[in-house]
Amino acid sequence: MKQNIETFIGCGAEYREAKIVLFGAPFDSTTSFRPGARFGSSAIRHESFGLETYSLYQDKDLSECRIFDSGDLELCFGDPTLALSAIEKHTAKIIKDGKLPFLIGGEHLVTLGAVRAAFKKYPDLQIVHFDAHADLREKYLGARYSHACVLRRCHDLLGDGKIHQFCIRSGEREEFAFAKAHTNLHPFDFSGLEETVAALAQSGAPVYVTVDLDCLDPSVFPGTGTPEAGGVSFLQLLSALRSVCSLNVVGADVNELAPMLDSSGASTATACKVVREFLLALYH
Amino acid sequence: MKQNIETFIGCGAEYREAKIVLFGAPFDSTTSFRPGARFGSSAIRHESFGLETYSLYQDKDLSECRIFDSGDLELCFGDPTLALSAIEKHTAKIIKDGKLPFLIGGEHLVTLGAVRAAFKKYPDLQIVHFDAHADLREKYLGARYSHACVLRRCHDLLGDGKIHQFCIRSGEREEFAFAKAHTNLHPFDFSGLEETVAALAQSGAPVYVTVDLDCLDPSVFPGTGTPEAGGVSFLQLLSALRSVCSLNVVGADVNELAPMLDSSGASTATACKVVREFLLALYH
Amino acid sequence: MKQNIETFIGCGAEYREAKIVLFGAPFDSTTSFRPGARFGSSAIRHESFGLETYSLYQDKDLSECRIFDSGDLELCFGDPTLALSAIEKHTAKIIKDGKLPFLIGGEHLVTLGAVRAAFKKYPDLQIVHFDAHADLREKYLGARYSHACVLRRCHDLLGDGKIHQFCIRSGEREEFAFAKAHTNLHPFDFSGLEETVAALAQSGAPVYVTVDLDCLDPSVFPGTGTPEAGGVSFLQLLSALRSVCSLNVVGADVNELAPMLDSSGASTATACKVVREFLLALYH
Amino acid sequence: MKQNIETFIGCGAEYREAKIVLFGAPFDSTTSFRPGARFGSSAIRHESFGLETYSLYQDKDLSECRIFDSGDLELCFGDPTLALSAIEKHTAKIIKDGKLPFLIGGEHLVTLGAVRAAFKKYPDLQIVHFDAHADLREKYLGARYSHACVLRRCHDLLGDGKIHQFCIRSGEREEFAFAKAHTNLHPFDFSGLEETVAALAQSGAPVYVTVDLDCLDPSVFPGTGTPEAGGVSFLQLLSALRSVCSLNVVGADVNELAPMLDSSGASTATACKVVREFLLALYH
Amino acid sequence: MKQNIETFIGCGAEYREAKIVLFGAPFDSTTSFRPGARFGSSAIRHESFGLETYSLYQDKDLSECRIFDSGDLELCFGDPTLALSAIEKHTAKIIKDGKLPFLIGGEHLVTLGAVRAAFKKYPDLQIVHFDAHADLREKYLGARYSHACVLRRCHDLLGDGKIHQFCIRSGEREEFAFAKAHTNLHPFDFSGLEETVAALAQSGAPVYVTVDLDCLDPSVFPGTGTPEAGGVSFLQLLSALRSVCSLNVVGADVNELAPMLDSSGASTATACKVVREFLLALYH
Amino acid sequence: MKQNIETFIGCGAEYREAKIVLFGAPFDSTTSFRPGARFGSSAIRHESFGLETYSLYQDKDLSECRIFDSGDLELCFGDPTLALSAIEKHTAKIIKDGKLPFLIGGEHLVTLGAVRAAFKKYPDLQIVHFDAHADLREKYLGARYSHACVLRRCHDLLGDGKIHQFCIRSGEREEFAFAKAHTNLHPFDFSGLEETVAALAQSGAPVYVTVDLDCLDPSVFPGTGTPEAGGVSFLQLLSALRSVCSLNVVGADVNELAPMLDSSGASTATACKVVREFLLALYH
Repeated sequence: MKQNIETFIGCGAEYREAKIVLFGAPFDSTTSFRPGARFGSSAIRHESFGLETYSLYQDKDLSECRIFDSGDLELCFGDPTLALSAIEKHTAKIIKDGKLPFLIGGEHLVTLGAVRAAFKKYPDLQIVHFDAHADLREKYLGARYSHACVLRRCHDLLGDGKIHQFCIRSGEREEFAFAKAHTNLHPFDFSGLEETVAALAQSGAPVYVTVDLDCLDPSVFPGTGTPEAGGVSFLQLLSALRSVCSLNVVGADVNELAPMLDSSGASTATACKVVREFLLALYH
Repeated sequence: MKQNIETFIGCGAEYREAKIVLFGAPFDSTTSFRPGARFGSSAIRHESFGLETYSLYQDKDLSECRIFDSGDLELCFGDPTLALSAIEKHTAKIIKDGKLPFLIGGEHLVTLGAVRAAFKKYPDLQIVHFDAHADLREKYLGARYSHACVLRRCHDLLGDGKIHQFCIRSGEREEFAFAKAHTNLHPFDFSGLEETVAALAQSGAPVYVTVDLDCLDPSVFPGTGTPEAGGVSFLQLLSALRSVCSLNVVGADVNELAPMLDSSGASTATACKVVREFLLALYH
Repeated sequence: MKQNIETFIGCGAEYREAKIVLFGAPFDSTTSFRPGARFGSSAIRHESFGLETYSLYQDKDLSECRIFDSGDLELCFGDPTLALSAIEKHTAKIIKDGKLPFLIGGEHLVTLGAVRAAFKKYPDLQIVHFDAHADLREKYLGARYSHACVLRRCHDLLGDGKIHQFCIRSGEREEFAFAKAHTNLHPFDFSGLEETVAALAQSGAPVYVTVDLDCLDPSVFPGTGTPEAGGVSFLQLLSALRSVCSLNVVGADVNELAPMLDSSGASTATACKVVREFLLALYH
Repeated sequence: MKQNIETFIGCGAEYREAKIVLFGAPFDSTTSFRPGARFGSSAIRHESFGLETYSLYQDKDLSECRIFDSGDLELCFGDPTLALSAIEKHTAKIIKDGKLPFLIGGEHLVTLGAVRAAFKKYPDLQIVHFDAHADLREKYLGARYSHACVLRRCHDLLGDGKIHQFCIRSGEREEFAFAKAHTNLHPFDFSGLEETVAALAQSGAPVYVTVDLDCLDPSVFPGTGTPEAGGVSFLQLLSALRSVCSLNVVGADVNELAPMLDSSGASTATACKVVREFLLALYH
Repeated sequence: MKQNIETFIGCGAEYREAKIVLFGAPFDSTTSFRPGARFGSSAIRHESFGLETYSLYQDKDLSECRIFDSGDLELCFGDPTLALSAIEKHTAKIIKDGKLPFLIGGEHLVTLGAVRAAFKKYPDLQIVHFDAHADLREKYLGARYSHACVLRRCHDLLGDGKIHQFCIRSGEREEFAFAKAHTNLHPFDFSGLEETVAALAQSGAPVYVTVDLDCLDPSVFPGTGTPEAGGVSFLQLLSALRSVCSLNVVGADVNELAPMLDSSGASTATACKVVREFLLALYH
Repeated sequence: MKQNIETFIGCGAEYREAKIVLFGAPFDSTTSFRPGARFGSSAIRHESFGLETYSLYQDKDLSECRIFDSGDLELCFGDPTLALSAIEKHTAKIIKDGKLPFLIGGEHLVTLGAVRAAFKKYPDLQIVHFDAHADLREKYLGARYSHACVLRRCHDLLGDGKIHQFCIRSGEREEFAFAKAHTNLHPFDFSGLEETVAALAQSGAPVYVTVDLDCLDPSVFPGTGTPEAGGVSFLQLLSALRSVCSLNVVGADVNELAPMLDSSGASTATACKVVREFLLALYH
């Protein structure tokens, strides 16, 4: 009699043969406003069975891809340092084995663990970042390791001109001043993405793609800690993801679904579909 | 002292004089994912009192139309065969009396009962189908009578080229292959509707219109069992309905509202408005 | 040790120095369908801390404006006359002190209290009205003081041609007939706003701006008593507000958030953002 | 084809033959805290189909009783005076026709309308009152017609020593002082009920029974505007109702279910069962 | 890298060594009122991680027991016959391998599948049944295989005097008449359990224990399709389970949690605790 | 015009004159299961206006007591050390000014900050602890500062025999072994409280009282992170609190309300009532 194995739909490959490795980081301790992103990865895995494995958009089928789902990490609540170390270690192992890490959060801070691992392997790493918030604060409520500071911490590692931000529509005045000097911030939507992708394609640089699902409009995705009116549509995000996945992507994540906040389940269903399309676009 | 009669707003005509007869089919036993569509027809009737009877879009008023609401059928849970027979019998009675049947689901399988009755009267019946899902599976989890197979069962009756599908964005690879060979499937939105309506108008063929409300984007309509991101807007649906209602429509349905899934009530309110506009457009 | 003072984010000025005075009117007794707007002002104040004070859209910061939040009025439930008097009195005091009153409802009837005060000071007052509903009934369920009659009561005061209505998509046939004769009603969206603003600008007339948040599409704003499909987007509303705030605005309100109806919190978050942008646009 | 008639389960008798007449008063405009009781009567009717008509407690069956359900009154929101008149008129008609009126609220203020009608017929009327709150205020937020004043208004009519209150555990100090002088108030639970019933039985006085469902503990009945910890159990209430129904009851009501507040539906299901048992106990 | 295995907490033994085998039957197609029990087994497994493995009541620890969790069966919706066969087959395999089957529903009909398998092996099987409802109807809405008929179907197999029912407080008059003639029905609570257990202990008969969680009071367990006021407490159920588990139990089940109906999660947490205590009591 | 001051109902005294100082600690970063206790103190303050200030149980009125509400602390998420320091500092200031600190959490870890401050002033401090969980782990998921370890950390300070635990019904085997050696743990309910209070009264020792609201049964209090079936009733808790408040209490707290988890609001209302009764009992 078989044990009860749960994976994201269609991600039933063995580790050995897999090209992409999916894993969850159920952590949201630094979320200052409304918590619940800790339940995101588990809900996405669980509810993925409401989806088909086949995508009409890309005419591809997840069940024909070799993707392994290693489940959720067990992370320490109340100590971001320990949690980030665990994420970094897990990501590094996947990269070392020649596979693409695909992280599902959790709050956005988890990205830092994965980026650290990717940066160690690829010192010329660039980041493409879709988000409603700039996440460029130096500190937030006294803490440097906070979801509101995560791209700032990534900048500490990567340096100027390596972070390409889209859909940003919220932040402090200081964050936008910082962005002007140090990152490529594109406000509101995906304007400028085509040029960014063209430039990154030419350079061949390794790219890490981080998607805070609150880049989507709250009408599409209310189930997140800090919904920000004025975001992009699902089809716009889908198109942007397919464009970015033509690049040399070496790591990726999707985060900030707080499933309990949207009791209709539509946010979770949309997150599942984003993950399916993202995985299919990444899989060459 | 009067008894407590409940109807969809403005549908207080007597049966004898009515041109359209509304009824509910509170059945969702084959729903594999998230049930609740059984409560759809009752919620639509109950919450319709938040609407006006007058439509500014069509400059028509339901209270000036002769529509009878016969309430919800009492259907057997756990036996789709019995439920479909009851729906077919009720629909056949309405058609025999020279009135237009307007069915509110319930899950999408209920359409099969009404289509059987319409097909017996009109052997050249054509179907116009708005839905996120192709619903063309031969079997689903071992069952041939399932919401995921309903258009396939309709095809069994009507044959090739009689089913016109719009807004479809989800299904198995096999369903799209089947559609290519046997139905007129238009993916994603209402592209191609104008041509379809023109052709059907010219032929004068009797048309059954079936609307799975999940054709709408989940932002507009989260209250359904399997919300699929990337759908159409309310105004697009309204425009499509008005276009289709210019044809020789002999039966119609609206289904898949699961009201408990959207606790805000916005999905139910939108379903009510779709029903009002649909009825007004059908009423000549 | 300090007492526990709660304000809308960034509205911490003292009354004496303030240019705008915010206050809440937690009243919804005449709401016929789904109540809850009484909790709107309190929720907007409470949840505003999920926002930034800085707006990227307008490159302005609330914390640099002098705005005073006087909290919620304590209003009598079950007697609209008493409630309207209290609102009128409070508004009149603010106007007398040379400040701009900014009222947060509550149901839409509360607007009448503020308009009475503004009209006493400015007999040539004009109203710009964004709403899904015409609110022009003479009576509703026997009552003349009802949310469904509020603009009709304003018309009783101001007279013909002074009320400019936008986004209206619901009402009785009689209301639209009344509007044709007595108000400037623009159905469905903001078509015609540019011309209206140009004319009002030229006249220099004092303008009261009343925003029923259900002018927004229910996808964006489900948390309201009578959501009406087919509304405008957040960005359309933002643009319209900025346009109107270029006029000689002497009073303003935002109403009809019923926060409990949207348990995701997205409606409340959107209302907060509308209030922030509205305040920033009003602040010269 | 039949129209869609909705009644409380098993209450399908014709008016002419009925001994008890059920009706709803969907009014909650004076509710100061959390509204929603307006939906109580409709929810009780709708959800009663989850019950059996047979009671094992009393070995009686509703389907064997002659009870008529006249539906919900259409009441004016925002004007308690009009609403109370409508309730009084409807109750008076039922009493005049020799039947027992059974009112389902709505907020507790609706009791006043029914008591006025009963008092006109029976000047020696006594009231048995189960509630968490004393409801004996002279005024509440400036209003004399408020749910918090309803028993005080009844006392205005009936005079001293006619009101017997049980389960009371909340009120202002002044209300308890008033009760000491003018009513028979039994705090916390049903202590003293046996003696009260014995005395009322001996006198043969006509009795009106009013049940605010928040007399139940919030664990049993959270779906009410102001839940008060420390209440009685369902079985205690059942026993008390059966005891009181041995008296000469000439009118009765059940109120203050706010169904939307308990999304589990358990409060509504419990209210349905209270109504069933109350009706069976009243039916001789 | 390990695959993602999910079990009920502490049930991580291998099949070969296990004494008890847990499995889920996510089926609720015949539920006539409020569906959702299909999500019960999955929610119980998922949320069990909020529990400790150690029980202070029994001073035992699940992690010291050898229990295997085989996950949820994949069952056909819309065809109870197929679903029951699958459950019977799975149960028979477990019994054949000398292990105790422990089924988590799903709706109560699933019990029939397991009882069939147990009855084939143990023709003198007796059933101990805890439930709010008698479940003794011959037919329900035309169907013989319905949750409302499940104990009647068990009686068809086992015959008179073999079914011992407790906590029953709802049913039709006919069901109680049937019980009088054919089963040992104890109304309302666990009165009579001690004697029943003593008799069954003396006979040494094989016993199947079926627990419909709605035997609990709705205050304790609102998350079920048809909550019935007047039930037992958690501690009463715990005591009864421990008593029954002293018998020769050859199969057991727990069913009718509908987790979405109680958004607080307390019902699911209580169901988890019942399962833990039940397993510990069964484990000798 | 007055600013908008929010306090717990009836706690409007000035700091200078106050005998008790209320404050909130909105922190829940170490909560491993279901977060949300961060919203507890704010919800209790906000919803307290559904209560009366008068208590019939104690015949006392909050409005006659001198209590100051200093609002919620602004605490760093993601760093328990910083949060605990802030709580300790605030508590120490209150104690230094000769007033009684009354802390509302937040998660249970916040107690440690207040206990540290009390212990510095009173080295012979004893703790009375009401809780479902022992909270005696040495570490939890790698962290020593966790809600699951808070009483263990208190024991680190106070030493053996100083902690008196009641209602405990959940924990690991090791925690109960630790308790046997080092604390006075009374399982399940308040058995033994009378003796404990007598002994503490005789000693005259300073006592800190910490109440984890999950000591209550989940039927009474579902709105908490880890509801544990089998708890005490509200009236039992009330009686225990009044007993303990006869001692020399030098600090107190109430924690672990997660208001969003119980959408009915009953848990919050009950927490408000516990706070009112606790304050009244403490006030001599």
